[in-house]
Amino acid sequence: MAKTPDASRRSDRSRRAILDAALALVGEVGYNKLTIEAIAARAGVGKQTIYRWWPSKAAVLLEASLSLAGDAAEEGGWSFPDTGDLAADLKQVLRATVDEFNDEKYDAPTRALTAAGATDPELGARFTEKLLEPQLALYEQRLRSAREAGQIAEDADLRLSVEMLVGPLTYRWLMRTAPLTHAFTDALVDRVLRGLAPH
Amino acid sequence: MAKTPDASRRSDRSRRAILDAALALVGEVGYNKLTIEAIAARAGVGKQTIYRWWPSKAAVLLEASLSLAGDAAEEGGWSFPDTGDLAADLKQVLRATVDEFNDEKYDAPTRALTAAGATDPELGARFTEKLLEPQLALYEQRLRSAREAGQIAEDADLRLSVEMLVGPLTYRWLMRTAPLTHAFTDALVDRVLRGLAPH
Repeated sequence: MAKTPDASRRSDRSRRAILDAALALVGEVGYNKLTIEAIAARAGVGKQTIYRWWPSKAAVLLEASLSLAGDAAEEGGWSFPDTGDLAADLKQVLRATVDEFNDEKYDAPTRALTAAGATDPELGARFTEKLLEPQLALYEQRLRSAREAGQIAEDADLRLSVEMLVGPLTYRWLMRTAPLTHAFTDALVDRVLRGLAPH
Repeated sequence: MAKTPDASRRSDRSRRAILDAALALVGEVGYNKLTIEAIAARAGVGKQTIYRWWPSKAAVLLEASLSLAGDAAEEGGWSFPDTGDLAADLKQVLRATVDEFNDEKYDAPTRALTAAGATDPELGARFTEKLLEPQLALYEQRLRSAREAGQIAEDADLRLSVEMLVGPLTYRWLMRTAPLTHAFTDALVDRVLRGLAPH
């Protein structure tokens, strides 16, 4: 029997409420203490509603994080600009990432999941595969197009180059060793591109 | 009353046993589930022996990590070489860090504490101040001496330069995005120094 439009709308609303509840709660209590029961209570649905769609809290959070990344992409965060000006494009993306990390809505769940993935290899591998690698691939693609255009050295290792951009930013964010600012990521891009300049 | 030599030796042995137990356990169960009771049981001492010396598990772990870093320094890991050859010195230190991260004895507790510090700002601040910043300061000092010798650009931001070295390494280690090898850190040093070359 096909769902009625009303049932489908209710279903969409429930899914969204569950994902939002999962993100809010993981930021508040951390991954280890998060339970399906708490997500259900916060979302105002029954536990069985969650288990009908997802097998585990890891699965809920993975989809919640993907939807968060998707929201960011719609706001221009993860679609990778290619204006032909490599420095400007990288600065734009890293500034958007700084803004996300400085926004409690993104910071708390992302921090909790990064910490959980760092100590749980299986969880970490799933998040890396589904969330992180697709983002790294967008950076790599942008750098490849710059290399083909002769804007960076032919012998530049693209993966290493991406890590030189995201690594220092992630480090400063996770370790809180210094403020996360646009000035910081702008200077980082300039310095990295100096190291990647054609011979 | 002064301690007898025997009591002092017993005391040293107990302290060492407590620190070793704390490091082993935090790697096994993570920071959140670690208890003073479990450390005492593993070390073969009473709970009160631990509380006599440290007010909390965070304090035990901080000292344990400092002693681990101290052991590594004695093995050449954290004393910073200054042979005059900046690239060689940086490669030596980063290779030693790779070896530590690839050694379960260092990896498990360091990973557990990094994850705990990432989500607990107060704990993170203590570990950053006591453990991380002193290490970053050694890098900065080495780069400053290179800058004074005219080996890197006069306008090089030393803190940013350090983050360009330790950030990508920490990222690859925590996120497990690719194998941690000497070839990786050697290539990183070469690329970073290219970006820092004098004009």
